[in-house]
Amino acid sequence: MIVILKSGTTAEQTEQFSDILRKRYCVDIHTSVGAQSTVLGLVGDTKAIDVDSLNAFPIVEAVRRVQEPYKKANRKFHPDDTVIDVGGHKLGGGELQLIAGPCSVESEEQIISIAESVKKSGANILRGGAFKPRTSPYAFQGLRQGGLELLTEAKAKLEMPIVTEIMSADHIEFFNDVDIIQVGARNMQNFELLKELGKTDKPILLKRGLANTIEETLMSAEYIMSNGNENVILCERGIRTYETFTRNTLDVSAVPIFKKLSHLPVVVDPSHASGIPWLIEPLSLAAVAAGADGLIIEVHNDPPHALCDGAQSITPEQFNSLANKLFLISDAIKEVNNSKN
Amino acid sequence: MIVILKSGTTAEQTEQFSDILRKRYCVDIHTSVGAQSTVLGLVGDTKAIDVDSLNAFPIVEAVRRVQEPYKKANRKFHPDDTVIDVGGHKLGGGELQLIAGPCSVESEEQIISIAESVKKSGANILRGGAFKPRTSPYAFQGLRQGGLELLTEAKAKLEMPIVTEIMSADHIEFFNDVDIIQVGARNMQNFELLKELGKTDKPILLKRGLANTIEETLMSAEYIMSNGNENVILCERGIRTYETFTRNTLDVSAVPIFKKLSHLPVVVDPSHASGIPWLIEPLSLAAVAAGADGLIIEVHNDPPHALCDGAQSITPEQFNSLANKLFLISDAIKEVNNSKN
Amino acid sequence: MIVILKSGTTAEQTEQFSDILRKRYCVDIHTSVGAQSTVLGLVGDTKAIDVDSLNAFPIVEAVRRVQEPYKKANRKFHPDDTVIDVGGHKLGGGELQLIAGPCSVESEEQIISIAESVKKSGANILRGGAFKPRTSPYAFQGLRQGGLELLTEAKAKLEMPIVTEIMSADHIEFFNDVDIIQVGARNMQNFELLKELGKTDKPILLKRGLANTIEETLMSAEYIMSNGNENVILCERGIRTYETFTRNTLDVSAVPIFKKLSHLPVVVDPSHASGIPWLIEPLSLAAVAAGADGLIIEVHNDPPHALCDGAQSITPEQFNSLANKLFLISDAIKEVNNSKN
Amino acid sequence: MIVILKSGTTAEQTEQFSDILRKRYCVDIHTSVGAQSTVLGLVGDTKAIDVDSLNAFPIVEAVRRVQEPYKKANRKFHPDDTVIDVGGHKLGGGELQLIAGPCSVESEEQIISIAESVKKSGANILRGGAFKPRTSPYAFQGLRQGGLELLTEAKAKLEMPIVTEIMSADHIEFFNDVDIIQVGARNMQNFELLKELGKTDKPILLKRGLANTIEETLMSAEYIMSNGNENVILCERGIRTYETFTRNTLDVSAVPIFKKLSHLPVVVDPSHASGIPWLIEPLSLAAVAAGADGLIIEVHNDPPHALCDGAQSITPEQFNSLANKLFLISDAIKEVNNSKN
Repeated sequence: MIVILKSGTTAEQTEQFSDILRKRYCVDIHTSVGAQSTVLGLVGDTKAIDVDSLNAFPIVEAVRRVQEPYKKANRKFHPDDTVIDVGGHKLGGGELQLIAGPCSVESEEQIISIAESVKKSGANILRGGAFKPRTSPYAFQGLRQGGLELLTEAKAKLEMPIVTEIMSADHIEFFNDVDIIQVGARNMQNFELLKELGKTDKPILLKRGLANTIEETLMSAEYIMSNGNENVILCERGIRTYETFTRNTLDVSAVPIFKKLSHLPVVVDPSHASGIPWLIEPLSLAAVAAGADGLIIEVHNDPPHALCDGAQSITPEQFNSLANKLFLISDAIKEVNNSKN
Repeated sequence: MIVILKSGTTAEQTEQFSDILRKRYCVDIHTSVGAQSTVLGLVGDTKAIDVDSLNAFPIVEAVRRVQEPYKKANRKFHPDDTVIDVGGHKLGGGELQLIAGPCSVESEEQIISIAESVKKSGANILRGGAFKPRTSPYAFQGLRQGGLELLTEAKAKLEMPIVTEIMSADHIEFFNDVDIIQVGARNMQNFELLKELGKTDKPILLKRGLANTIEETLMSAEYIMSNGNENVILCERGIRTYETFTRNTLDVSAVPIFKKLSHLPVVVDPSHASGIPWLIEPLSLAAVAAGADGLIIEVHNDPPHALCDGAQSITPEQFNSLANKLFLISDAIKEVNNSKN
Repeated sequence: MIVILKSGTTAEQTEQFSDILRKRYCVDIHTSVGAQSTVLGLVGDTKAIDVDSLNAFPIVEAVRRVQEPYKKANRKFHPDDTVIDVGGHKLGGGELQLIAGPCSVESEEQIISIAESVKKSGANILRGGAFKPRTSPYAFQGLRQGGLELLTEAKAKLEMPIVTEIMSADHIEFFNDVDIIQVGARNMQNFELLKELGKTDKPILLKRGLANTIEETLMSAEYIMSNGNENVILCERGIRTYETFTRNTLDVSAVPIFKKLSHLPVVVDPSHASGIPWLIEPLSLAAVAAGADGLIIEVHNDPPHALCDGAQSITPEQFNSLANKLFLISDAIKEVNNSKN
Repeated sequence: MIVILKSGTTAEQTEQFSDILRKRYCVDIHTSVGAQSTVLGLVGDTKAIDVDSLNAFPIVEAVRRVQEPYKKANRKFHPDDTVIDVGGHKLGGGELQLIAGPCSVESEEQIISIAESVKKSGANILRGGAFKPRTSPYAFQGLRQGGLELLTEAKAKLEMPIVTEIMSADHIEFFNDVDIIQVGARNMQNFELLKELGKTDKPILLKRGLANTIEETLMSAEYIMSNGNENVILCERGIRTYETFTRNTLDVSAVPIFKKLSHLPVVVDPSHASGIPWLIEPLSLAAVAAGADGLIIEVHNDPPHALCDGAQSITPEQFNSLANKLFLISDAIKEVNNSKN
């Protein structure tokens, strides 16, 4: 970490400030006095140093981190890709994983029928909402525990691991049979929830928040990992911008950036990113081309009658056609990367 | 609610669709067949209707709400300002309330000394963080329950009501002596927490999320209110934009918009909105001029040594000068409004 | 166009308002009186009607366009893809076009050598900046007319059509030998320039503005087309968001949306979208997978010594490797689309 | 300017790089070798150095400007407020200036009648659009030269200086009788226009672009000033964010920030910032409280029949009431600032 002092800072002020830093953060200070300004290099474990508390000193011109503030999620300290095994299916190992299912679990018949069809199309993991975060308190809130039971039934019947969203640390006990616990975009910085999930050993699918940066997303992964659970899957699901044509704007750049900065697997959710069924195919193809390890896609047998988010779901037939294309493009991308790099 | 059907929709399709709406939502349907398109008016309680589930029908061109989706927070159904009494101090009653104190409670000495000085300057309510949401798991997380105890001591000693942030519904039991429970920006759509706070009778200071709309903020207030607790105070604290000079961009328009759409009191947090001490005065003045009922301001006796967010705190002396100005401008605004409207 | 009147609007007010609309815009009005509100359908040529001027009437609740406000750029009225021939190379015809070259033309040697190498790698069109829009008046402003001359030399020597940016209608006369005139993001709503370009017959590469919507981009294309020049190529180059890791955020969704709403060719500029060389490959692959007709990429033989934007340029060697991958993926996408749709 | 080199950079690489910098930019280099990284201080005139071209060097970790890249607009080099005299009325001198008038000049009767009424209410400067930038080529484009003539008539008749927008450098000759030339948000980075305006001696009202930063706005002012015209008035008119309730989001913080960083006068346009008539009063009050030197407000005698932007105009009666309030609050703010600072 480098601290640039304002021009005009005296040697005495510099020394006093350095003393404070040494005591407070147990770091060594290397001072370089230049013509324009004095620069301090802080050497040691700086990840707990709050940039803002340094900026509060009147003599500080600027603070610049040289090292990323995340460690466990950082590829620098863990060069190999993390591969997460979910019921025999690998996320992050170079094989494209499709996660599919309805926005909300609505009935036994619905979840089983969708699960059957998406499995046939090549999806290895079943998604389905039981606890549903809804903007309105008057909207359908999901079947909650009842939904988890139906998901578990579908899991048993189809031998598909399941992923579903958690909305409160109080519900962790209900998620025993869930294979991947999803943290939704609205809870990405619900730090108390992240800490509790860090004490479990379940893979966590962490969705990027509505308007969170790539670094903040990695810091939220770090919350889970530093509490003991290193099985985190990052998920890009679109960010909030001024554009109103789509519900969110898919930040496809996040895929290669997450892969470069971190060793964690990355999946993309084109359904929430766009909110428009006919965009799901091109966005899914783009995500795979950009290097995504998997996709999580909303599929509903009867979108107009879906109890939630029907407008962004595709049908099982559309998913089948899409899955075929995605596996072909995934293979082409693998080939291209192997031959050329 | 008005649903515009695509041109080319047949009478039979219209009738089928209307039937579905009638059954599913218990609404009456008024059909207007125009040259360009057919328009359906949905009459009844439409607040639970999900716009997206209507958009999922292939024959739907557009859906337009005529009524706001929030009811309890809506000024239309509650024309008078809600006035919330906090230990004898009124929020929303036309009197400017200053809420001040440190970002984090750090020690008995610190909180008592800051409380004394801000009280002397005219702040009626003491703020102080005990549970701290931090982007990094390695940053100071607050004194937690210990911090609540110190706040309670300060409350008793200075006879000032206190406001502090909650981060999990599991902690509600610790907040018995807290006068106003704050929901931070990152938890604004932590719906399970909102529901639980709706079952308490404490005033809730609800901060607008990083990138949440005005309507979404009112829907989160509605979560609390529809669960039984109508004592909600709205808080504008800056939103995330592309501008990097300030930490966030204060959306001062939110103040008059909240006051127009809702009857709830509105406070502004200039400290988080800007992150820069010298902006706190002009932004506070602007907020009062725009109609804010109160301000919540970070004050620290020794900003460079604050354990959190020191860079955006002002000193007790600066707060004293600011408070004087704010009361004068508040009076001027009241006078102007009375004489001219 | 549909106008929803406020509830409580009288029949007389409705009639008066309808009269105004009929006279002012030469449209027919179809009135549908519903229980909740009256809805007017405006039939005729509504593209010149300003939504805001309708909203100014106190009785208007909402205005909703049923037809897009652009006509010439609209796929509805021109279902087939527009194919633009540039020196024998087709943009929009299903064949991937690579446009490559330096940010700024710096010298004869530089432009010829880069042109040679990108041509060898498969780029058919040469880019190079002569007039450079720079945030700072003190930064290198391009070689201007001298740059155009060097580009023309390179064009002659290598038989490659050239594309370069225009910054003022006053310069059109200098662009006689230029094959495609580029309108930069900062001039996307320089309407006087667009009108003048509409009077030429040169293909125009229109870059989406920093924070312009997809619809606004199409309206700017409409400015050019309605003035007589229908040879417009749309270009997505990243939009401004809160994310600071990349210079801009590539909105890859814009590609399929432009292709759906419009018949115009679409190219993507991954260099400006990201500002980071190692992102150019994954973003280019994503753009092709999402359906882009071409890519425009900055290539510099010596990025650190580039006079402008060196930080985002790739080397000729990197471009060669990238071009190979892009043609392979483009073929794979074509195959997939043909076999599956 | 400070350049931080990557750890692992050799002494030889450092020396080579320093040599390049010295030759290319005529700067002195002060090298500080620390434990973590080497830091170079560039001493001399660094405002023309492009940060990106430094970032292109593989050994560069980060570049940090210590001095702002604008000089003429910088308060550091011009501590006193610039006061611009417009027909005897001072902008920037501590006196609140109201600029008012219709969005578009429509007829002699209209402009004279509005001018008379706003003058009576205390507006010293008349605004009115002649050349109108419209998103759609089919929308009313202003009366253009005819509009300028009507404005000039109003100016003569009412002895009010006039401000109106320019859209092309080709039109400068028509602006002889115009007192302040406005550069609209969409042309804020039309650098060729800025350069030409820099060669005139007219005061320029420079509107911040849709999504431009505060620094970029100052750099555009610098374009005008470095070409010889130092009479620039900065204008905050709302920025583009994700919020859809208002047309734009007024960034009220920009007012004190512009005043701190620059010596130029600052006015606020609440009409375009909000697009909603009932927000104009609270936003105007907020702008004055935050330190604005003036306001530019759209007033129309018959908003529903305005040919442009009627929805955001207020009536002369509303303007009269508003002006009274603004002068009172402006006085109160002045008093408060004088007594307390």
